[in-house]
Amino acid sequence: MLDLSFRPERDGTEPLYRQLAAHLRELVEAGRLLPGDRLPASRELAVSLGLSRNTVNRALEELVDAGLLHSHVGRGTFVAARGPLRAVTGREDAPPRAFAWGGLLARRMRGVVVPAGLGQESSGSELRFDLRPGQVDPQTLPVSELRRALAAASRDLAALAHPADPRGWPPLREAVSRALVSRGIACAAEDVAIVNGAQQALDLVARVLVDPGETVAMEQPGYFGAALAFAACEAHVVGVGVDERGLRTAELARLLRTRRVKLLFTTPAVQSPTGVALDEARRAELLALADEHQLPILEDDYDSELRYGSPPVPALKNRDAAGQVIYVGTFSKALFPGIRVGYVVAPRPLLRKLVLARWAADFSTDLVAQAAVAELLRGGGLERHVRRVRKLYAERRAALLEALAEHMPEGTRWQEPAGGNAVWVTLPADVDALAVHVGAREAGIAYARGESFHLDGRGLENLYLSFARLGPDALHAAVEQLAAVARRCRTPRKRSA
Amino acid sequence: MLDLSFRPERDGTEPLYRQLAAHLRELVEAGRLLPGDRLPASRELAVSLGLSRNTVNRALEELVDAGLLHSHVGRGTFVAARGPLRAVTGREDAPPRAFAWGGLLARRMRGVVVPAGLGQESSGSELRFDLRPGQVDPQTLPVSELRRALAAASRDLAALAHPADPRGWPPLREAVSRALVSRGIACAAEDVAIVNGAQQALDLVARVLVDPGETVAMEQPGYFGAALAFAACEAHVVGVGVDERGLRTAELARLLRTRRVKLLFTTPAVQSPTGVALDEARRAELLALADEHQLPILEDDYDSELRYGSPPVPALKNRDAAGQVIYVGTFSKALFPGIRVGYVVAPRPLLRKLVLARWAADFSTDLVAQAAVAELLRGGGLERHVRRVRKLYAERRAALLEALAEHMPEGTRWQEPAGGNAVWVTLPADVDALAVHVGAREAGIAYARGESFHLDGRGLENLYLSFARLGPDALHAAVEQLAAVARRCRTPRKRSA
Repeated sequence: MLDLSFRPERDGTEPLYRQLAAHLRELVEAGRLLPGDRLPASRELAVSLGLSRNTVNRALEELVDAGLLHSHVGRGTFVAARGPLRAVTGREDAPPRAFAWGGLLARRMRGVVVPAGLGQESSGSELRFDLRPGQVDPQTLPVSELRRALAAASRDLAALAHPADPRGWPPLREAVSRALVSRGIACAAEDVAIVNGAQQALDLVARVLVDPGETVAMEQPGYFGAALAFAACEAHVVGVGVDERGLRTAELARLLRTRRVKLLFTTPAVQSPTGVALDEARRAELLALADEHQLPILEDDYDSELRYGSPPVPALKNRDAAGQVIYVGTFSKALFPGIRVGYVVAPRPLLRKLVLARWAADFSTDLVAQAAVAELLRGGGLERHVRRVRKLYAERRAALLEALAEHMPEGTRWQEPAGGNAVWVTLPADVDALAVHVGAREAGIAYARGESFHLDGRGLENLYLSFARLGPDALHAAVEQLAAVARRCRTPRKRSA
Repeated sequence: MLDLSFRPERDGTEPLYRQLAAHLRELVEAGRLLPGDRLPASRELAVSLGLSRNTVNRALEELVDAGLLHSHVGRGTFVAARGPLRAVTGREDAPPRAFAWGGLLARRMRGVVVPAGLGQESSGSELRFDLRPGQVDPQTLPVSELRRALAAASRDLAALAHPADPRGWPPLREAVSRALVSRGIACAAEDVAIVNGAQQALDLVARVLVDPGETVAMEQPGYFGAALAFAACEAHVVGVGVDERGLRTAELARLLRTRRVKLLFTTPAVQSPTGVALDEARRAELLALADEHQLPILEDDYDSELRYGSPPVPALKNRDAAGQVIYVGTFSKALFPGIRVGYVVAPRPLLRKLVLARWAADFSTDLVAQAAVAELLRGGGLERHVRRVRKLYAERRAALLEALAEHMPEGTRWQEPAGGNAVWVTLPADVDALAVHVGAREAGIAYARGESFHLDGRGLENLYLSFARLGPDALHAAVEQLAAVARRCRTPRKRSA
């Protein structure tokens, strides 16, 4: 009966119980919970929503106080009759009816659900170890470079007085096209469009190419932001497996034989989330398949500058002879997530359409941000920063891998990531993964759960641990605690088996 | 035969003839122009596309050189056989087939066409008088305030190290909610979401509320950006007329009796483009209609801070008792168009969905831009700037109105705008409006043509003249020239009638 798609909002300035209360209120107002409906017991609710019982109880109490629910000792909690909704009236001086937004939502929003497992509900004092992806260590910010870049942008504000060009600020497009030589991509400024971070590129590509019901294929596990963008276009999103060599091209080939696929999303440099790099043979297979099936490839080259060990492999786009690879990069990763500047390199007929979609979406990227990034590219500040961060992250990566080997229970698996700043960990089958997540939260350890990177709710046994924010000692301490939690969660049945 | 939907891209760093050549090439590659098809004569093409014959000829020459067209003296220009497209092949070392993007585009992009009449094709040396909307005078930029604000944001970069919150940076949400008291809106920070300028708010609202084929009503003439956002959701967009009292509510009432309307877009403070303010009686009628028909109102309050004469009227949102007005504002107008920070105030059930859509679209607005705007709001820099600009614009507005009265041919009509920075002018019926537009461009006068603000190609007789960029003398000179052009374009037939 109860819709379990409750997704707390990230970085909650609003407490969890309030968010849950608002969600339940919405279900009632939308008529999805009807007067007289009985709610599950708070213990059941807590388990199914992955929340503490205390949170659930506070939410229910708030709604009882508001008259939306009523509670009978020994019988349970029920949806009340329409008490709190005000009387319908057309008169201006009388209290108006509440406007019912629930029934007005567009179909395309139905599939748009922010993953619950990103760890955003963790914040503030209870958070002891922050291993969530998308965080940066404030100590590693390129503060002086950024200040210089912003000051440079400030000095020439008159150059920013023009309406921003939807294609991007010409000097930044130019600087990006030069910088891409390092990824093996030869392109002109005219082949580049600036966007608000990689996410907007994924969204624009989906809007331009994907009609409702069309199939989009993506890695599985895969990047949740891509899944969101495709869902918002009502795509049928199909996962293609990933192993230690990257995207399973044989699985993609099977899919392509049975189904018309409109677009393939992939992260060949640093597979999100597993950290694997697509190997050479698979790259050739992927491009051959794409050619054979006239399949556009959307390549998200995020974090390609953060490679460890082996020398970087050129982007897939480097071998895109027919112009069917759409290449996406971002500065939000190398600098900090709050700077919303990314880019897309696409064949011109498509790029023109992406720019058209950009007019409808938001016209253009902030010019001050574009000017600052252009300055960081031109002056070498970005490259210096990336070199520093790569060195720092290499140490943290080593520390996290070492701590995992030292502390985690036998049977725990992970792979050394080729790049990026996180490790994808798989708990052994005899550990109760849900209990680990609850226990870790109680211990103040935040990370992203594996379900966030799956389309179908699988991945509960996976932990996505970022080493970006913590130094080696903190990483060791965090893993030690996490391992203790995991050991407590071994299931007796399996242990005796 | 020829698709006339050619729309040159704004602020062309790419010359017009190249854009036209690329467009024609795309038509050929998409199979919409077939080998052997004859193109219209360059004179015909020039007229129908509103381009100079020279531009058309250069485009055709380029394509003849590329082997895509061939030209026979006395017979015309024809699409060539498939010469320039490379042979189809699956082999990696052979030249690949060109990837055919044309056939892959999503249905939703069909209606997304950037208006041709915004004057973006004008640039550089040929531009003597810039009356285009969306421009600012570099001299009026709040340079010192902006520098201070960016320096302040730079000083506290660590505060920006967190992932940007899709709802907006909390201090900016707080500052916006305080500032809105001046518009008669009492709201909390939690009711505000920060977006990349007003356009993104319109786009998010459309994505959350409007399914393909549903009807959205908007003022006519009306803001082209709203029409673009609705078109991108495959809405059926219906215009509702505007007169000197603003939106014609009686016309809206008739529409609502015959058709379910999902959303109404309106600009009550400064109607875009006519500059009219919605009067008191109409406001009451509109809200009553919205209540009766459970119609959500999307209120774009752009430029409400630029009022002349009468004291500002509170926003419609001020009287939104049932929570059915979605309120949108922007800082891109008061500061400069390249700063992409706006906001939306919406009832919470809807706001939550807008934030969800934001995750899919681009996560969040640049944090440096948000911090700078927050500083400008808190420190009063924005308010001081708006006061200065309002005074300056009042002079320029007066100069433009005076020049129109002095110079324009008899029968030309306009209305004194209640706010904003542009005047909507209607040419008399005996003037050949198309000839005026061509003549004005040749004279180096750029403005937006009326068709840009119509859904159906009407409005050719309208000129949207912004007084933002030019001082009083330049405005007088521009209108004098424009009037001379208009006088030359009186049609003899009508003159003798």
